[in-house]
Amino acid sequence: MVDMNRLHLHIRWVLDKPTASGWTDKRNNTDAHTLYWIHEGKGIFTTDQAFPVEGGMMAYMRPGLQMDMRSDERYPLQMTMILFDCAEVGYDVRWTEIMPIAELELPFLKPFHTDKSKALGLRFRDLYRSWVPGVQGGALLPQLKLTGLLYELLLPSNGDTGSEGAESAGQALERVKEYLESSYNMDFTIHELAERFHISVSYLRKMFHKTVGMSPKHYHSHIRNEHARHYLMYSELPVKAIAKACGYMEEYHFSKSFKQMNGISPSGFRLQYMATKEGQPAGQTAKDESD
Amino acid sequence: MVDMNRLHLHIRWVLDKPTASGWTDKRNNTDAHTLYWIHEGKGIFTTDQAFPVEGGMMAYMRPGLQMDMRSDERYPLQMTMILFDCAEVGYDVRWTEIMPIAELELPFLKPFHTDKSKALGLRFRDLYRSWVPGVQGGALLPQLKLTGLLYELLLPSNGDTGSEGAESAGQALERVKEYLESSYNMDFTIHELAERFHISVSYLRKMFHKTVGMSPKHYHSHIRNEHARHYLMYSELPVKAIAKACGYMEEYHFSKSFKQMNGISPSGFRLQYMATKEGQPAGQTAKDESD
Repeated sequence: MVDMNRLHLHIRWVLDKPTASGWTDKRNNTDAHTLYWIHEGKGIFTTDQAFPVEGGMMAYMRPGLQMDMRSDERYPLQMTMILFDCAEVGYDVRWTEIMPIAELELPFLKPFHTDKSKALGLRFRDLYRSWVPGVQGGALLPQLKLTGLLYELLLPSNGDTGSEGAESAGQALERVKEYLESSYNMDFTIHELAERFHISVSYLRKMFHKTVGMSPKHYHSHIRNEHARHYLMYSELPVKAIAKACGYMEEYHFSKSFKQMNGISPSGFRLQYMATKEGQPAGQTAKDESD
Repeated sequence: MVDMNRLHLHIRWVLDKPTASGWTDKRNNTDAHTLYWIHEGKGIFTTDQAFPVEGGMMAYMRPGLQMDMRSDERYPLQMTMILFDCAEVGYDVRWTEIMPIAELELPFLKPFHTDKSKALGLRFRDLYRSWVPGVQGGALLPQLKLTGLLYELLLPSNGDTGSEGAESAGQALERVKEYLESSYNMDFTIHELAERFHISVSYLRKMFHKTVGMSPKHYHSHIRNEHARHYLMYSELPVKAIAKACGYMEEYHFSKSFKQMNGISPSGFRLQYMATKEGQPAGQTAKDESD
């Protein structure tokens, strides 16, 4: 799975493709990733088999995929195409390396229903309009927009482009998740949580396990622990103050829980981080500081 | 100057800093870039000299900068801090390397007036809220938001965060620029352009030279030429069809103008691109030399 936090795109080309009746074409840029948004019309995309396509569908082609396209005689395809490269930009205390992504976890074809389809059509048009080749920053905004779109498509629980149906349940879960994320320095029981969001405890537990992969309590502890780690790495606050900032009444409880989750004490973790940071494998920090 | 199209951020930490009366601190993470948004309060930031700071100001610290901070006794500082790394992710036919950015071209302190200041305060709060550590994708949206903000701050002519005053003139120029960018396949004189936007020809020329660095006609030709280059690189359309797609009535005129701007014929350019693409090491291409 791609580390979304490190996702970086390079857009090669954005093109509006209003095709004519009976238009055919072969996929040219098989070394890039391609997204097609089909605004309207009908046609056939042929890889090792033939897929009928129509307005409201998004098509994703991984690098390497050979494909032929054809428009319907009566309702030719109207499409926006985005040709792009994507990579994970490695970071581990300092920048490491660019790791090209061979394939995104997107379906080859995905149909969207009326409302989402309209919204996506507008987003692709907007992306097309905002792309200006050969201009300082002229690819940046569309790259940010496309990255945001891929974020929603790849992690549907975080966005609004997910599958339809059970929408209110998904939204409720989303609100609980956000609440847990922003209330990392507070304590509450799962019963209080369920009551606050008018969901049953068992449903909340089941939903969380299904979409987040852990219980709400575990997720809350995880986020709290991550905040503690960031305080330890990037601030010089004493452990006692960090315990308080993360919602622990007693430094003792914080240290015990931190050790349980990280296998090392808070101050041990801080020393370990400082040592890793001092180590100079890439010579990059030295370079930065020389200016 | 940073190539904005290749800008990539890694957010280390986002922190809300409600300080208390008489609070003092030393900048800890001098190996990163730091942005402070001051929501309210007063204080002193001290580098080699002392700078009074107050609500509505943004402060940017380049890596390496030593700084002390102090809050006013009566109106302590309320701030949002973002600690981040930034780099250019090289791309030249294929990915090349990560080039850390030593310093962004931002002022150390920048005050904003009422409306912009309110809007920026909300953006920093939103950035803070959307940052969730230790979660798949939990840094991506704030990274995209911060990249968008830096785009506006670094290229003020493209955004809405630029300096105030003469706003309507800047907006008019922006509309002309967008029109030229989207109408790359159309022809018009500068008189038609001035008339369409109710600006005088001389003012239009002067403004364009000042902010874009070339005449409107030159900018239009540049964008058109970039589109032609993209068609040549990424499509297999015959040159005649590309000439038409870029708004040339005659293939002959297109070829002549392309050769003038690129020092090579359209088909020569296409062959050269194909050869560079086939070649293993990513060498210098004609593309980078175009400006």
